[in-house]
Amino acid sequence: MAMTMTQKILAAHAGLSQVVPGQLIQAKLDCVLGNDITTAVAIPEFQKTGATKVFDRDKVAVVLDHFTPNKDIKAAEQCKACRSFAREMQIKNFFDVGQMGIEHALLPEKGIVVPGDCIIGADSHTCTYGALGAFSTGIGSTDMAVGMATGECWFKVPEAIRFNLTGKLSPWVSGKDVILHIIGMIGVDGALYKSMEFVGDGVASLSMDDRFTICNMAIEAGAKNGIFPADSAAQAYAKAHSSRPFTVYTADPDASYVAEYTIDLSKLEPTVAFPHLPENTRTFDQIPEDLAIDQVVIGSCTNGRVSDMEIAASILEGRQVAPGVRCIIIPATQAIYLECVRRGWAETFIQAGAILSTPTCGPCLGGHMGILAAGERAVATTNRNFVGRMGHTSSEIYLASPAVAAASAVAGRLADPRALVGGAE
Amino acid sequence: MAMTMTQKILAAHAGLSQVVPGQLIQAKLDCVLGNDITTAVAIPEFQKTGATKVFDRDKVAVVLDHFTPNKDIKAAEQCKACRSFAREMQIKNFFDVGQMGIEHALLPEKGIVVPGDCIIGADSHTCTYGALGAFSTGIGSTDMAVGMATGECWFKVPEAIRFNLTGKLSPWVSGKDVILHIIGMIGVDGALYKSMEFVGDGVASLSMDDRFTICNMAIEAGAKNGIFPADSAAQAYAKAHSSRPFTVYTADPDASYVAEYTIDLSKLEPTVAFPHLPENTRTFDQIPEDLAIDQVVIGSCTNGRVSDMEIAASILEGRQVAPGVRCIIIPATQAIYLECVRRGWAETFIQAGAILSTPTCGPCLGGHMGILAAGERAVATTNRNFVGRMGHTSSEIYLASPAVAAASAVAGRLADPRALVGGAE
Repeated sequence: MAMTMTQKILAAHAGLSQVVPGQLIQAKLDCVLGNDITTAVAIPEFQKTGATKVFDRDKVAVVLDHFTPNKDIKAAEQCKACRSFAREMQIKNFFDVGQMGIEHALLPEKGIVVPGDCIIGADSHTCTYGALGAFSTGIGSTDMAVGMATGECWFKVPEAIRFNLTGKLSPWVSGKDVILHIIGMIGVDGALYKSMEFVGDGVASLSMDDRFTICNMAIEAGAKNGIFPADSAAQAYAKAHSSRPFTVYTADPDASYVAEYTIDLSKLEPTVAFPHLPENTRTFDQIPEDLAIDQVVIGSCTNGRVSDMEIAASILEGRQVAPGVRCIIIPATQAIYLECVRRGWAETFIQAGAILSTPTCGPCLGGHMGILAAGERAVATTNRNFVGRMGHTSSEIYLASPAVAAASAVAGRLADPRALVGGAE
Repeated sequence: MAMTMTQKILAAHAGLSQVVPGQLIQAKLDCVLGNDITTAVAIPEFQKTGATKVFDRDKVAVVLDHFTPNKDIKAAEQCKACRSFAREMQIKNFFDVGQMGIEHALLPEKGIVVPGDCIIGADSHTCTYGALGAFSTGIGSTDMAVGMATGECWFKVPEAIRFNLTGKLSPWVSGKDVILHIIGMIGVDGALYKSMEFVGDGVASLSMDDRFTICNMAIEAGAKNGIFPADSAAQAYAKAHSSRPFTVYTADPDASYVAEYTIDLSKLEPTVAFPHLPENTRTFDQIPEDLAIDQVVIGSCTNGRVSDMEIAASILEGRQVAPGVRCIIIPATQAIYLECVRRGWAETFIQAGAILSTPTCGPCLGGHMGILAAGERAVATTNRNFVGRMGHTSSEIYLASPAVAAASAVAGRLADPRALVGGAE
């Protein structure tokens, strides 16, 4: 029977020639990931398994990114527990303050993920690595614990939805707009426990950063994973970051999908998800012109990469953040931060009246570094705009691309970057 | 009767030709300062006075620096209250995220302080501005409230201690070592409610940054204020940062001091205050060689200025932060941050494995951005090493200069910068 990309990767990692949707399998893992919050919970569970070492010290990754640099004593204690565990287990891919970045930007950058991998992470946005043609999905701390002990995890083989991408994005429209458009179309449960497979001749025009962003938010449609074929761009990325050999999986032409959508990328526009769900999407023809804002956040595992920083800098260059708006820019990794410094963007940001923070998940999950007060409104390049996600339960988050976020910082209200830079082109 | 520098400034601001120690006076204020924590407390007290506006919108400064970018919802609400108040009162010197920096670095930089000023601030380290020959002192939020309403504050005229500085500091010895040496000598209550007046031919050799650091920690000896004569260097600084006219006050030759000390700057060495008091000072001949550390913090109102960043960069250039050590570098203002970027220090810090945070008081007072877990040890350029100041009550803080802190980050233990860079010169 024909299989999807995801099904092929799962079959290969389960040692089976064939899997079918709904089948329960046990798959070998190429990487087990945790962060400072979830690893701290996984450690005592790991100890309960009786294991005295992790299954492979090269295949576990622990990244201290959520409440770091330590927000408070509790965060400090969690990080300390992770640090001790990593030292005891001789975990190779342990990233502390100074080497670290946001996990889902860091793992690809460090070459820990390559096409065809099967990866679990105790963080819901682990699905990001589908951009490289890997199967990756978020699990809980207990599965992380067992994964670290055994190198395996059980899965129910998912059905799939095919997104056939055609055409090419217009200027000022990016991967964030693609995935927001899709979530707006299918809803936050539109892909529940399914694979979102992105294919078609439009894929080649998407940058790797666009693809990371798109797969990152697959979970916001309820998907088990998001995945792109590992085309020449993905393979080049993998080779540039890793020396590990990899396998490229392609869906069979007659693979079965529960739904198919065709999306003409050239028709997409800057898209914003209004409070309090990522599916509440609007384009600027549907957005009031006077929606004043208090804060802008540009960063996160969704949009804290080099191209995100570049587009923010291109908009903020020679402009000023509007009075009364805090514009918080957080490169996702130290390497991206360094790029901001070297390319002059750090100077641009500071001159514009924005602030540039060291890498952290921080405000995205209401952790620290930019929490909202009652009634405050933020435009954020992050991934969730649930009630209270970035602070007070009466605050509001508008999810958008870095271009929209930067334009909004300058305008002091939710703003279309095409209008700011002069023309929809 | 002859007067000290401080007494002359107080007399002038009280409209008196003469004041004597112990006298209660009412003085006019050139600036009333608050931060996000203390202003939030002062606002309701201000309202109780019945005042509907501040005494002078140009002479109130509110700086959101302690728990910003907002650490949590409570911090966000405090900042929001300050923001609303500043808007309502049309306070000119209101500094929000993006324009802000640590208050005691920011006010001199923005030209808000000039020689001869009389300033109160609802923050204990307000005494910093004595470096410019101003009288400045920390008060509580209630005095801040009344100060904002009336433009006046009551003081008991302090006695004074004279510190006669001679000679010149050796390389790798800085203002931080001077003030730690003095506090070690006289104790944390050694200057209780007194002025610490720093005079002598050694003054000219001290940079303005050294003097800010020295005055900043006068409060750590219990002093009402610390003050330097406004010599040509201080006057040049004031003119470069402000267009306000100013008055230079000099102590009368026969002014009375309750104690006098002569300190030969050339004899001072890198000095560290051990837990849990700033008076527990040791030089490296008294420090064990194997005192392993977990964290280094370079920043704060004490040592987050340009020369502090420069010396840290000079040590970290081409070197690496030791494994297991988090090195957190926090320029005190956006302007200093920009200087770090332009001078290449930002790149040096990141390459060395340190992190560079946006300006905030953060870890100094256990706020955020680097809180310590139980038993952890930090070398910090901050000003207080009280029990639990930077996190858990069993954590330890070693107060030191940026040179010692940076050398310690590289060594992974409390380290003498002279040994690291090769020779005591």
